Amino acid sequence: MSNSNKKIRDKIIGLGESSARKSYYPQLLENIRELKEERAKLIETVHTLEEREKELENLVEEKSILLEEVHHRVKNNFQIISSLLNLGRNSALLPSEAANFSETGRRIQVMAQVYERMLHSGILLKVQIAELLRYIAADAYYSVKKPGVRINYRMNENQLFCGVDLATPLALIVNEVISLLYSYAFSDGSGELNIELAPDTAMDSAGNTAYTIRVFDTGPGITESTKEVLEKQLGVILIRNLCSQIGGSYNYIPTASGNYNIIFSISLNKDQAA
Amino acid sequence: MSNSNKKIRDKIIGLGESSARKSYYPQLLENIRELKEERAKLIETVHTLEEREKELENLVEEKSILLEEVHHRVKNNFQIISSLLNLGRNSALLPSEAANFSETGRRIQVMAQVYERMLHSGILLKVQIAELLRYIAADAYYSVKKPGVRINYRMNENQLFCGVDLATPLALIVNEVISLLYSYAFSDGSGELNIELAPDTAMDSAGNTAYTIRVFDTGPGITESTKEVLEKQLGVILIRNLCSQIGGSYNYIPTASGNYNIIFSISLNKDQAA
Repeated sequence: MSNSNKKIRDKIIGLGESSARKSYYPQLLENIRELKEERAKLIETVHTLEEREKELENLVEEKSILLEEVHHRVKNNFQIISSLLNLGRNSALLPSEAANFSETGRRIQVMAQVYERMLHSGILLKVQIAELLRYIAADAYYSVKKPGVRINYRMNENQLFCGVDLATPLALIVNEVISLLYSYAFSDGSGELNIELAPDTAMDSAGNTAYTIRVFDTGPGITESTKEVLEKQLGVILIRNLCSQIGGSYNYIPTASGNYNIIFSISLNKDQAA
Repeated sequence: MSNSNKKIRDKIIGLGESSARKSYYPQLLENIRELKEERAKLIETVHTLEEREKELENLVEEKSILLEEVHHRVKNNFQIISSLLNLGRNSALLPSEAANFSETGRRIQVMAQVYERMLHSGILLKVQIAELLRYIAADAYYSVKKPGVRINYRMNENQLFCGVDLATPLALIVNEVISLLYSYAFSDGSGELNIELAPDTAMDSAGNTAYTIRVFDTGPGITESTKEVLEKQLGVILIRNLCSQIGGSYNYIPTASGNYNIIFSISLNKDQAA
């Protein structure tokens, strides 16, 4: 059979099974060899990646433990600082000095509370605002105990968080305002202490909701002379310092009887509260 | 050809190439199909692992940032606490009250210094002991300034670390001892304040080296009556409290002239210093 005849025959009857086998057989073997090589490489890659996975998992675990340990040390440090302040208080010569140390101690407790709330918020470096305010108010209440004063919480925003950088001065201010109110605003032992956290009725130009926190009394109020005394007190100086840092305001509102109610308020924009 | 004849023929001449091809051909194709399936699965596994790797790398990065942020907040908290103590000092009515606040503030600075040294040690939760002691001594020196007093550091163990849980009380004690020495031990304005950290000459039964820290003066010493005054002071009360926590000792050593030198010492075993 001539070459051209063979070509024609192949064209007509197709490559017979035998011819197909003859040409494909080594190709298939080569194919298998290549696939096996690829498999070996892929298995090696999987092993390398699995090792890397384990390594990274260990690193994550290590860093989590480290973070826990740091938290533990921070809490420990707060305790040591409290002890140091107690020592200072115990060595005080005047009752006013002891009170000064106790108040400083309470302020540091407030900072410890913020750290504690941060750890419990589930979002690191964030604090749930309403929860924090409740804790601060409850701590202040237990250190004063004025059963005639009713405390109203008006805070339905349970999913509103802010960063600890804001929460720390905020908590210090609220603690100070509540202490002031308990000490001065309810001279007849009755009245209401209000803590509010609510969205503003109007949105800003970008369509974002801002929130306002208000702490104020509706008691009989303080007199003009008490107001002047307060303005020289450490607590009010601290409130004013911290307000200028975070943009809050501390004011006296004249009452019908010529006295003053105290109000602290701060507006939180969407960058501060989310 | 009968069946038995064919078997004999096959046995003698072996399976011809054609027969081999006939029986292997589908097997090879099946082999290739399986290998390709395996390859697809392996590639999928590699993709999954690569995604997991990226995820874990992000998590490690996230936790590192978090840790940095927590450190930043801790430092920030120390600053706020210092401000609170400054406020307390500024509202003091008596010089002794102001001094009491200043001392408490310095103690908290010491704690902040321990935290700072921890961050710089390169080993989280660990502090390089000699470096820490130098910093504490330098800080104490700058707050007192007694140029006539020479301070001797005898610490060649530059690779000795301890945990922050030990470092914090240790630093507080050393700060307190140095302050006491500066205030009382160099009544004529001269003398030597020695800070030593050295391996013990004898090893323990397990063949481990223990280390001893010593802080002491070789000045003219304090009198019996000063010693009695000191024992009632806040600083010494604090030293004794902290010594009982970490196992150090604070003592008075009689001098030839009938006075007393002050010595603090603590022995660190291999679990404490490594």
